[in-house]
Amino acid sequence: MLLCDIGNTNIHFYKNGATWSKRASVKNISLVEESFYYISVSENLSKFLKNYELAKDLAPYIKIDTIYKNLGIDRVAACRAIENGVIVDAGSAITVDIVAGGIHLGGYIMPGLISLQDSFAKISKKLDMTLQPNVSLEALPQNTLEAISYGAIKPIILMIKESKKDKKIYFTGGDGKFFAKFFEDSVYDSTMVFRGMLKTIKERGLSL
Amino acid sequence: MLLCDIGNTNIHFYKNGATWSKRASVKNISLVEESFYYISVSENLSKFLKNYELAKDLAPYIKIDTIYKNLGIDRVAACRAIENGVIVDAGSAITVDIVAGGIHLGGYIMPGLISLQDSFAKISKKLDMTLQPNVSLEALPQNTLEAISYGAIKPIILMIKESKKDKKIYFTGGDGKFFAKFFEDSVYDSTMVFRGMLKTIKERGLSL
Repeated sequence: MLLCDIGNTNIHFYKNGATWSKRASVKNISLVEESFYYISVSENLSKFLKNYELAKDLAPYIKIDTIYKNLGIDRVAACRAIENGVIVDAGSAITVDIVAGGIHLGGYIMPGLISLQDSFAKISKKLDMTLQPNVSLEALPQNTLEAISYGAIKPIILMIKESKKDKKIYFTGGDGKFFAKFFEDSVYDSTMVFRGMLKTIKERGLSL
Repeated sequence: MLLCDIGNTNIHFYKNGATWSKRASVKNISLVEESFYYISVSENLSKFLKNYELAKDLAPYIKIDTIYKNLGIDRVAACRAIENGVIVDAGSAITVDIVAGGIHLGGYIMPGLISLQDSFAKISKKLDMTLQPNVSLEALPQNTLEAISYGAIKPIILMIKESKKDKKIYFTGGDGKFFAKFFEDSVYDSTMVFRGMLKTIKERGLSL
């Protein structure tokens, strides 16, 4: 069974445990030649898929107990994959959601690393540099590249630590592996969203 | 004596304790009709002022003991205004610098609030909102506006707290007043940079 998780930037595919990605475009989703379940946060692709025969929207079936209004369907799916803990999806945005006893307690959104890098470049030509992922977060920065790398990466880590406390933590998304290494006992799983989708399909007895 | 602090976005003026600001442009600096000392981080305006008779660059006279390479001259000036503590200059970028015994120990740069707001807007139309400055930083966000406001403001505050520890803290810049209110015993002073400039002028016995 083919699953698609359609983001603002990329389409992520899942089939029999394998995953792959393509840029989010109507063309790339049109190349799919078999029936699939999808979730989408892309307005553009959602509109297209409404009338695409092979595509079945899984969103109406994925539910989580929450008072959060308009929680992104990808975040709902990832949260459905666990019963307790913090889920960090680090992509073009970084979303952090907290789940306890299967209930979503709330969450927040930070700009992702690439987005922060672009912000610096827009502020000043002098800050237009590629962030240095291995910058020391212990020693105070002593030049511009260290200063923006530290100022981009460390706030995100402090926030996630503050949210984690003694909870279990799960990372997913393009930069999930990078952030996971700052947390002992963290789980990195690129398929969190798909696991939530599969759980829903199983629970509801859906088939294609 | 007229002083000018020229940033990437605005020119800040100081005379006899009064301050005012204008957008950074050659036109706005050309309107000045008296001699003035300036510092500038704007490449464009720096180039223009090199041949502007009324303007005297104070940068060659402002020095601080540091191993930081290419520390912005506005940051050097602000650091010169104190002997010990943390200086947060919250503008289009947020710079945080640490000074002990008159020595600059290092510092870092984060995107400012407007810059973060722009980042969200670029990531997705759904995140294109004006940040809510009075969002609760204690309760978990329960909608998109809360989620991005919390995700923009709280990381900055956690970072500054981590840098502050038991040190004295000084805020300056357009959003300095906003961030100062999260810290007990903080000092907000919109003239930090000018105080450093004046100190230098006095020490060096300069006049116009």
